[in-house]
Amino acid sequence: MTFSAPTSQAAPGGVGEVLGLFRAQPSLTRADVMERTGLSRSTVNQRLDALVGAGLIAPSGEGASTGGRPASRFAFNQDRGVLLVADVGATGMRTAACDLGGAVLVARECPIDVADGPHAVLTVIGRLFEEMLAEAGRTTAEAHGIGLDVPGPVDFGSGQVVSPPIMSGWDRFDIPGWFADRYACPVLVDKDVNAMAFGEQRRVYPDVSPLLMVKVGTGVGAGLIVDGRVFRGADGAAGDIGHIQVTVAGVDTEPICRCGNAGCLEAYAGGWALIRDLREAGQDVATVDDAVALIRTGDLTAVRLVRRAGRILGGAIADSVSLLNPRVVVITGQLARAEEQLFAGVREMVYRRSLPLATRSLQIVPTKLDTRAGLIGLALLLADGIFAPDRVEQLLSA
Amino acid sequence: MTFSAPTSQAAPGGVGEVLGLFRAQPSLTRADVMERTGLSRSTVNQRLDALVGAGLIAPSGEGASTGGRPASRFAFNQDRGVLLVADVGATGMRTAACDLGGAVLVARECPIDVADGPHAVLTVIGRLFEEMLAEAGRTTAEAHGIGLDVPGPVDFGSGQVVSPPIMSGWDRFDIPGWFADRYACPVLVDKDVNAMAFGEQRRVYPDVSPLLMVKVGTGVGAGLIVDGRVFRGADGAAGDIGHIQVTVAGVDTEPICRCGNAGCLEAYAGGWALIRDLREAGQDVATVDDAVALIRTGDLTAVRLVRRAGRILGGAIADSVSLLNPRVVVITGQLARAEEQLFAGVREMVYRRSLPLATRSLQIVPTKLDTRAGLIGLALLLADGIFAPDRVEQLLSA
Repeated sequence: MTFSAPTSQAAPGGVGEVLGLFRAQPSLTRADVMERTGLSRSTVNQRLDALVGAGLIAPSGEGASTGGRPASRFAFNQDRGVLLVADVGATGMRTAACDLGGAVLVARECPIDVADGPHAVLTVIGRLFEEMLAEAGRTTAEAHGIGLDVPGPVDFGSGQVVSPPIMSGWDRFDIPGWFADRYACPVLVDKDVNAMAFGEQRRVYPDVSPLLMVKVGTGVGAGLIVDGRVFRGADGAAGDIGHIQVTVAGVDTEPICRCGNAGCLEAYAGGWALIRDLREAGQDVATVDDAVALIRTGDLTAVRLVRRAGRILGGAIADSVSLLNPRVVVITGQLARAEEQLFAGVREMVYRRSLPLATRSLQIVPTKLDTRAGLIGLALLLADGIFAPDRVEQLLSA
Repeated sequence: MTFSAPTSQAAPGGVGEVLGLFRAQPSLTRADVMERTGLSRSTVNQRLDALVGAGLIAPSGEGASTGGRPASRFAFNQDRGVLLVADVGATGMRTAACDLGGAVLVARECPIDVADGPHAVLTVIGRLFEEMLAEAGRTTAEAHGIGLDVPGPVDFGSGQVVSPPIMSGWDRFDIPGWFADRYACPVLVDKDVNAMAFGEQRRVYPDVSPLLMVKVGTGVGAGLIVDGRVFRGADGAAGDIGHIQVTVAGVDTEPICRCGNAGCLEAYAGGWALIRDLREAGQDVATVDDAVALIRTGDLTAVRLVRRAGRILGGAIADSVSLLNPRVVVITGQLARAEEQLFAGVREMVYRRSLPLATRSLQIVPTKLDTRAGLIGLALLLADGIFAPDRVEQLLSA
């Protein structure tokens, strides 16, 4: 089961909209709900009774006195179930069981090779989901949703990875179908940096739009959040910054990219390109983490190469700033841990190349949620899908 | 007076929402409105009485029989007033008086030099507005809104041009204030290609999202429409494709751009760059229209140069497709009239460089509204602002 577009318009002031208020606030009184919806007291009472009956909200202590007896407060019941999420990278994976508010209850990490294909990787994920459910004291039936993010292009509607440059064997594999035997809940699949951008925006920059998140790990990708929603484009392919062409002075032969083209951003500035360049310079590095460790020792060759990567990355981010005019650019991924060595080059190019109107209030910052951005983003995307107003109405009228 | 963000939330099922239904349809019966809003017959009658009383809708013939007497049809009153719009280019300008549905009633064209500054250009616009009002048999008081689009970055909230690369003298000039003496209506100022993109999307591709419009005139710019709305970014600077950096093989010294940087897209592929290159090749061309005329004669140098411009433009559009994943890319501007010579290069680069997921359903097409896209787009943007649900409620409750 995947998330499809709403089949019916939710009624304004309906039970779905009222639940939405509770999901956005720690707690509310009946009077709060009346004020925010314009509904009558009797209608509000009906809505709250339905939501309490379904276990979606629950009484939550007492509110401030309104002159007579204290008003009862209600809060979204984040413990009604759990969300199982997996943030799948090229060489490693993080999984978590989250509550319905997106808080991480149990987490796991595990090295993988995404190129081993969907059967191998999804088997590990399935096992970790079981372990985490057990540790959280929850049953399979209590899983309200499953979310995966992957380092490749995703057709969000069908939950399929489509023609990924890496991820061999995953093309059009039915990921939601894999989980259908064991779990009755909906399954969401998204591009990794979309989930990360969504988590970071919702948790750290709730009032910012647009927010552009750029992940510089083994590859390079971007996610854009506009008005609180993931901007996916027409087919879910938006944010493919890693394969835009960049100009590098003094380069005679453009490096070949993993996608088959030459001169792509990640063929210069991705983690795999940095490893290639460090090896050519005689350094013994096998992984992006090795490269970052070497940069942190202050090795001159490594520092020179990461600064160059930062300027090249900055050129592409400057192009994105010119096209999209974001308020905040968040940089994440393993290479973002090289911090100032990378950021200096990025900032230099963006402020040099983009319009003053686009840069006067622009922030370029490292991720605050760091390695949990994807997990939290997936949980919040799932919760938004599961508790979309029209779905809540269907649930309660069923 | 400019358009600000809504100060209050319009009530669902309110008079503003009901007017919105009429603006989207040729005509509706009372039963249609009941069905689409879920409002009761008596509430619908109240809403329609208020809208008829304000002259915003009017009876429109008779509807199909519903068994008893024919249902009365009502339609949006597009003739309640006029919208005065001006599409300002670097070297020429088009103006129109439109009805409230965005249809052009009277139009004018006029050569100008936008670098003559706001006083000179706005004086001409003011005179043309008066002439067109007279020709349409309308008074100044009947102008419901004024819209201008300009070839430079605009702070949409204040209606000011901000740090424009061309348009000397316009920086932060109070365009809405210029019209305030004579007209009491709101004034909207937007970037030219935003208005063009909005007109094209609304009239030709009403169900398409995202739509990217690229204007290749003297300069190069882009406008993006997402879910039926202009995507402006955080400061209104989005779509600045003309100044992203491009890679051109075999170029030792990057050309200097009008913005002060080197290697910008428009320094290779804009009309001014094509004129520069044609002159260097010994051709006697003064304007972009001269260059297009020369291309159409089949002159080999001109054809070679425009094909090269097409491929370079295509590289930047491929980057935009990778980032934004639009469903339709519309190309407009004087150079778009070079048609296949330009489009072949654009298509070649986009299909070569962008992800299969992003190009499998992509259309790259010339503008259908052509020179009227900006005028129609401005009128529709004005109408959306003037008849925003919260404004209609304020209007009727005043």
